[in-house]
Amino acid sequence: MRENEKMNLTMLCDFYELTMGDGYFECGMAGQITYFDVFFRRVPDNGGYAIAAGLEQVISYIQDLHYSDEDIEYLRSREMFCEEFLEYLRSFRFTGDIWSVPEGTPIFPYEPVMTVRAPAIEAQMVETYILMQLNHQSLIATKANRICRAAKGRAVLEFGSRRAQGIDAAVTGARAAYIGGCAGTACTISDQIYGVKAGGTMAHSWVQMFPTQYDAFAAYCKVYPNNVVLLVDTYDTLRSGVPDAIRAFNEILKPQGITKCGIRLDSGDLAYLTRQARKMLDEAGWTECTITCSNALDEFLIEDLINQGAEIDIFGVGERLITARSEPVFGGVYKLAAVEDSEGNIQPKIKISENVAKITNPHFKKVYRLFDRITGRAIADYICVYDETVDDTRPLRIFDPNATWKSQTVTNYTARELLVPVFKKGELVYKQPSLDGIKDYCRAEVSSLWDEVKRFDNPHNYYVDLSQRLWDIKNSLIRGMRRHGD
Amino acid sequence: MRENEKMNLTMLCDFYELTMGDGYFECGMAGQITYFDVFFRRVPDNGGYAIAAGLEQVISYIQDLHYSDEDIEYLRSREMFCEEFLEYLRSFRFTGDIWSVPEGTPIFPYEPVMTVRAPAIEAQMVETYILMQLNHQSLIATKANRICRAAKGRAVLEFGSRRAQGIDAAVTGARAAYIGGCAGTACTISDQIYGVKAGGTMAHSWVQMFPTQYDAFAAYCKVYPNNVVLLVDTYDTLRSGVPDAIRAFNEILKPQGITKCGIRLDSGDLAYLTRQARKMLDEAGWTECTITCSNALDEFLIEDLINQGAEIDIFGVGERLITARSEPVFGGVYKLAAVEDSEGNIQPKIKISENVAKITNPHFKKVYRLFDRITGRAIADYICVYDETVDDTRPLRIFDPNATWKSQTVTNYTARELLVPVFKKGELVYKQPSLDGIKDYCRAEVSSLWDEVKRFDNPHNYYVDLSQRLWDIKNSLIRGMRRHGD
Repeated sequence: MRENEKMNLTMLCDFYELTMGDGYFECGMAGQITYFDVFFRRVPDNGGYAIAAGLEQVISYIQDLHYSDEDIEYLRSREMFCEEFLEYLRSFRFTGDIWSVPEGTPIFPYEPVMTVRAPAIEAQMVETYILMQLNHQSLIATKANRICRAAKGRAVLEFGSRRAQGIDAAVTGARAAYIGGCAGTACTISDQIYGVKAGGTMAHSWVQMFPTQYDAFAAYCKVYPNNVVLLVDTYDTLRSGVPDAIRAFNEILKPQGITKCGIRLDSGDLAYLTRQARKMLDEAGWTECTITCSNALDEFLIEDLINQGAEIDIFGVGERLITARSEPVFGGVYKLAAVEDSEGNIQPKIKISENVAKITNPHFKKVYRLFDRITGRAIADYICVYDETVDDTRPLRIFDPNATWKSQTVTNYTARELLVPVFKKGELVYKQPSLDGIKDYCRAEVSSLWDEVKRFDNPHNYYVDLSQRLWDIKNSLIRGMRRHGD
Repeated sequence: MRENEKMNLTMLCDFYELTMGDGYFECGMAGQITYFDVFFRRVPDNGGYAIAAGLEQVISYIQDLHYSDEDIEYLRSREMFCEEFLEYLRSFRFTGDIWSVPEGTPIFPYEPVMTVRAPAIEAQMVETYILMQLNHQSLIATKANRICRAAKGRAVLEFGSRRAQGIDAAVTGARAAYIGGCAGTACTISDQIYGVKAGGTMAHSWVQMFPTQYDAFAAYCKVYPNNVVLLVDTYDTLRSGVPDAIRAFNEILKPQGITKCGIRLDSGDLAYLTRQARKMLDEAGWTECTITCSNALDEFLIEDLINQGAEIDIFGVGERLITARSEPVFGGVYKLAAVEDSEGNIQPKIKISENVAKITNPHFKKVYRLFDRITGRAIADYICVYDETVDDTRPLRIFDPNATWKSQTVTNYTARELLVPVFKKGELVYKQPSLDGIKDYCRAEVSSLWDEVKRFDNPHNYYVDLSQRLWDIKNSLIRGMRRHGD
């Protein structure tokens, strides 16, 4: 049995969600309708955009929200919650609405990527899990997208399970890496569950288990003639590894007419060694033999290796992808944007801060992505109040919300809403695409971005603008709050 | 239903473990007894030691090893494995032996922290999961231990679930943080499952939901008079946050005779703000009111805040702990150390490398920790061949394995074996301590280390030495391999 097999993910919440929940309940505020936005403030690695991922797991979680008898018994044992609240939790389920960007969407700071509309108590309970799932998978999808872009069309495989931060970091991490562009994974269960194609051949231990390296290679070729990738760096890559591999190919594969095979290097100077290995393989007639490399790779090392003429067909990327080592945190937050009063009027809410960048965008909102009709490229994202509509047959004036004199009028464009309905009154109304569908969508959406937005360092800041009406509401709330604070 | 509730962790393996497994099977080598060591090469953050964690989850995993019909069907669909192998997997279970250091043990580079003795196929199959679990939990326990040492006795709470890399990163991450020294967590389910005390009070949204900040504070004090921690930075910490908190304490708590309460700050200059807040609280007579702080804290910021006279009683640490942000990878590896021949003789195996540091320590080994009888401090770890014994009534000469002229003779010491039996012939023979027992053991073991080993930067390198016999075997194998490589 999996130790935590019976884990009820409803209980994967910060304890303050329960104390607030009980508090709202006792104050008669449990049913007040609230709007919370998920958004983030900075792209990891100072990149130009992130890739949204994790919605599928959020959907399963929302559908399964419930408190078991054991959960309620545990909560009672904490001696903080009133019996009426515990009784209420017995029939707790999610009854609200959720809008989200589809998985695979390029996303930018300060725009809502998910909005939850629900009674206060329900909206508060789901904060931690939603953030954790979207933060984790978006982090890995974003990193994978950087690494795959560096590989310039060569395949990138996710090899990091053993260095992942726990079970789901490995399993859903491989899923997110696939969305971001990886061609496959070493993680078997991610193939079994999600269909992320898994592959792999041998470790150094295989080579060490046989009397000689050649014996190990020959044995492998005999067992898997159609799936041979020999690990050539156990003893000495160029002096014995590649020669023993060629000998095994010649003696076992050639008589069977097999021309497809591969070698893998996991150490040493990959630029030099792969150029030499390529020459040796070609001279021996194994021109279709692929070269796979791994060893602490990331987007920068891959870019350098390609620039130095390394002869690498496939990159295996481990710990630097599965943990997003260079910046292992995606800082998505969950902030109150509005509440409904007793007449159902939506009252915008704002969280101000001395740090201007931390002031939230208030109100229930829509996000449009504007595309140039001629180039097909994304021009800007445009955030407006929920009841505003962009008519893309008419020119649209957009402006920088922090430097309002920077404005332009967009013409000849199409506008697409980014947030799509996922739950309505607690019912799932969204049809989740297949994993390959998500991956294809991601690739197409990223290709709609200008190259300037895709630079690894110091990319162009994509425009994320507010409608005039939303900007006015925000600034009026800020002025009101400052009076309140005085 | 948890989407992956039926996840069989046996399938959380790198695919090459299955191809090698089938390969050993087809080559008639499946039953050959092998010895694999788990060890690591570098302490994260350039620290002086790491804290071992994750054994409990490895034990559950080993006990549950099996392939279900669905697993075998999936493997068959890959069209790579022979039917006899798939049939063999139906009754697969772990029949070998495992030795491990107990959770909470300070561990050092290059020493085995776990040894697996099992038929090749079994030992190979468990590689990824064992590494993933020990790497993840040791990473977080090690980081937590650094952060807690910086806090110099003040409580540190783990607050990072929302930024964790997946479900288990949050849940077992909170467990590992507790082992490393944290006093509790915000993660409710880690309390429910593991008994990591969870707590929490309110988010900014609670304050925003009420007409005024005072109303929000008063409402909370009424609901939880004995568990009040008010978040005072929603609008303006010193101008309205602390004054509103004091007013709520005076009006709601004081009449009930309650003197214990708290405030929390999540932004701003924590050194300045907490000194001012402390003064305001003390002047109002709330001397027992604690001050909790969070906001991108780690060991260095905590050390600085304490040095600057910040008045902080409790630190809440989020993303920088739960992801070990400064270095999010623990590099444990799983390497073949020996095989048994058909007569049961143990043949040491070595993996050499151009990089001397990457050469493995061969053979089935024991590890002793040597303690000075007078100070009780740990002097060195001493690795020897499995059938060697340290007699601590007699002097012991130890030497640096890389600079053999650096030697000393240890006297008046005690020697304790670090690796204890966990599984014997597939049966669990280890009684796992309670989580609090592990935490206490960790604290006691860390206190046996010299302060020089505990520096955050540039610590003293603790001695990890080889016995003369093990050193001789290793060097003889290196010489043999180099001849083989020529």
